[in-house]
Amino acid sequence: MRPYEVIKAKRDGKELTPDAIRAFMDGYVRGDVTDYQMSAMTMAVFFRGMSARELAAWTRAMLESGEVLDLSETPGIKVDKHSTGGVGDKVSLSLAPLAAACGVPVPMISGRGLGHTGGTLDKLESIPGFRVDLSVADYRRLVKTVGACLIGQTATLAPADKKLYALRDVTATVDCIPLIASSIMSKKMAEGIDALVLDVKVGSGAFMKTLDDARTLARTMIGIGREMGKQVVALLTDMDQPLGRTIGNALEVKEAVEMLRGQAPADYTELTLALTAEMLVLGKKAGSIDEARSQLEAAMRSGAAEAKLKEIVAAQGGDPAAIADLSKLPRARTTVAITSVQSGFVTGIDSEAMGLAAMTLGAGREKTSDVIDPGVGFVLDAKVGAAITAGGTLVTAHVNDDRRVPEVIERVRQAYRIGATVPAQRPLVIERLT
Amino acid sequence: MRPYEVIKAKRDGKELTPDAIRAFMDGYVRGDVTDYQMSAMTMAVFFRGMSARELAAWTRAMLESGEVLDLSETPGIKVDKHSTGGVGDKVSLSLAPLAAACGVPVPMISGRGLGHTGGTLDKLESIPGFRVDLSVADYRRLVKTVGACLIGQTATLAPADKKLYALRDVTATVDCIPLIASSIMSKKMAEGIDALVLDVKVGSGAFMKTLDDARTLARTMIGIGREMGKQVVALLTDMDQPLGRTIGNALEVKEAVEMLRGQAPADYTELTLALTAEMLVLGKKAGSIDEARSQLEAAMRSGAAEAKLKEIVAAQGGDPAAIADLSKLPRARTTVAITSVQSGFVTGIDSEAMGLAAMTLGAGREKTSDVIDPGVGFVLDAKVGAAITAGGTLVTAHVNDDRRVPEVIERVRQAYRIGATVPAQRPLVIERLT
Repeated sequence: MRPYEVIKAKRDGKELTPDAIRAFMDGYVRGDVTDYQMSAMTMAVFFRGMSARELAAWTRAMLESGEVLDLSETPGIKVDKHSTGGVGDKVSLSLAPLAAACGVPVPMISGRGLGHTGGTLDKLESIPGFRVDLSVADYRRLVKTVGACLIGQTATLAPADKKLYALRDVTATVDCIPLIASSIMSKKMAEGIDALVLDVKVGSGAFMKTLDDARTLARTMIGIGREMGKQVVALLTDMDQPLGRTIGNALEVKEAVEMLRGQAPADYTELTLALTAEMLVLGKKAGSIDEARSQLEAAMRSGAAEAKLKEIVAAQGGDPAAIADLSKLPRARTTVAITSVQSGFVTGIDSEAMGLAAMTLGAGREKTSDVIDPGVGFVLDAKVGAAITAGGTLVTAHVNDDRRVPEVIERVRQAYRIGATVPAQRPLVIERLT
Repeated sequence: MRPYEVIKAKRDGKELTPDAIRAFMDGYVRGDVTDYQMSAMTMAVFFRGMSARELAAWTRAMLESGEVLDLSETPGIKVDKHSTGGVGDKVSLSLAPLAAACGVPVPMISGRGLGHTGGTLDKLESIPGFRVDLSVADYRRLVKTVGACLIGQTATLAPADKKLYALRDVTATVDCIPLIASSIMSKKMAEGIDALVLDVKVGSGAFMKTLDDARTLARTMIGIGREMGKQVVALLTDMDQPLGRTIGNALEVKEAVEMLRGQAPADYTELTLALTAEMLVLGKKAGSIDEARSQLEAAMRSGAAEAKLKEIVAAQGGDPAAIADLSKLPRARTTVAITSVQSGFVTGIDSEAMGLAAMTLGAGREKTSDVIDPGVGFVLDAKVGAAITAGGTLVTAHVNDDRRVPEVIERVRQAYRIGATVPAQRPLVIERLT
């Protein structure tokens, strides 16, 4: 089939054969299928969707457009976690050392932040010396010897996805579930994992605004995993307010270390434990979720989890002393207390707006070429459900550039909803899908 | 709105403002809106359609991307005809001199043939010396002095449509009614016309396979005309077999001249008169269709129509003696009678297959760079309804390259359907829409 015929068949709602999809994707990577043909195709996929068979072939074609890492020299079941992206989401920073401390090898390839969401790589780089641009050989060695390695995407992994994502981003086909699912899964499969835990965020601050959409995305990714022989578990989790108490790179590293010490807010601690417990079960290090949680709590109490984090940091060129003594992490010049103009209860915090406010401070990127300021960000003094009086502090902003302060105050105040009554509590883990 | 937002709004079924459409189209012509953004947009239009207001803005933006010819120095109402394309459709060749002979100025900008359909320009060029690449100044002068001029599209007319059509052709959005309608109307409006008669073909050999689609296309074009202040009348006409008795460039010119002499087959004669009568009414040269038909028949009988054709030919550099003596038109070296293998009645002739068979002989183009052979083609000795005996001639092929003959015989035999009973007669003009 010529590219034209493949586009037309998809447009007309016909199921494409795996061969047709493979040829189209290979042609796209080579340049024989043009950007304008691919953008017509993705728009047709937006309207027509993809069958399970089409989706597996599409994902496999993206995966096999590049290198698929072989981690077979590391014994055991390699498990990674992927989150669809939230604000204040520092789960990876505590989850990776926890899982590794309990014997599950964690090969983790992460992204950078853009727009309102932060990126694990940016957070890690706020640790002095920490390097995320390791070679594939080093990555393979550290997964084996340390038990975890956290690096950035290399040019050799799923290049079709990189090219396609950039195109979708300018042609309005980013928010299309089959394309999101295949993009995530092609990158994750390329890491060399055996199993995967998904954290699919739902709510105002998430990519998936409704539970239905989140469920569909989770099921779609689980289906792709099944077609490719990988076990996938998904938790649908609430993202109607930022996770934990901090937003900003060094601030989030600090909170992650505190989590390993049992000193972090309940929502962040609970989500990390829920996701890591799934990894221990998938990795056959625990027979049940309860058993896994006991092991995780023991690793926190004994200091094994924090020790593993220091080991990871040292192995990737970072200074483990900055973990032992958190005051060695980058810090902003000043702090500004942003206060409430009214009394009541915090009924909601718009995560996306808070993420954009953090970006305004320099904690995130508006465009990929922007440089991150590691010390700046927010500490949320009041989360949903908290009682607040007029003049009380909502958020402490950690600031380097005072000129941004007026805009940031405005954004934070607009992100907070204050009401007369205590809001109903929402469960953090909404649903578990396998 | 950024291009991304315009695409997304259309994708999500929102109505675009005229300003947004204008900026998007202008950006496309300048190159600020990329091909891959436009192809995503046209695919979204395929699924979402366009409102009357959107369509008028889209057409106007394409029209005004180039020059809009001003024919105001020619008095009277300038009327053109457009056909959605058929096989053996030589209506323009007889319609233009007929309308001009009756006092309606005809500014006609036509296309070339591609695939199974022939083009008016190619047919005209089979007249020795005839030139279709006149300047805009000559075109304007001849519409005024001769009353009709038939030329090819210039680079200055609706350049957005040219660029967009080439893109749609490789991204599977050609067969999309709003895009077809706006493409046709933007080109026609650029000619400088006041009113337009549309011949929308329906049937196996036509672009619109069903009456519903043809009706929608006709209504869409009439709607665009209304929004732009131009009167448009559409006839839905049958294209379930080739029109008239000939397919091929010089053969069709010959048949067109015979039509003006009252010697052509009924279907072709009737369609020409029906469409031209509409032009006379729109051009206010007749008060009714009946009155118009009397005038047209008088112009045929008196020789005025043929004289006008000679005048047009001479004005465009052609040899009018080739009209007076049709044996001076290019002719093929030999003819081959293609016979029926069975007896019965002709129940159908697949127009598209006949068009492709004519292309095989050299009468049409597979790709735009192919060169036309003006003398070759077919004379259909048996049309739908004719009784035929095994061994009787279906078609006389006019051939220059004998090597093509076996394939052509095969194609023609497959295009003909022979049955045991006389088929029901189909009306030629199915519906009239205003």
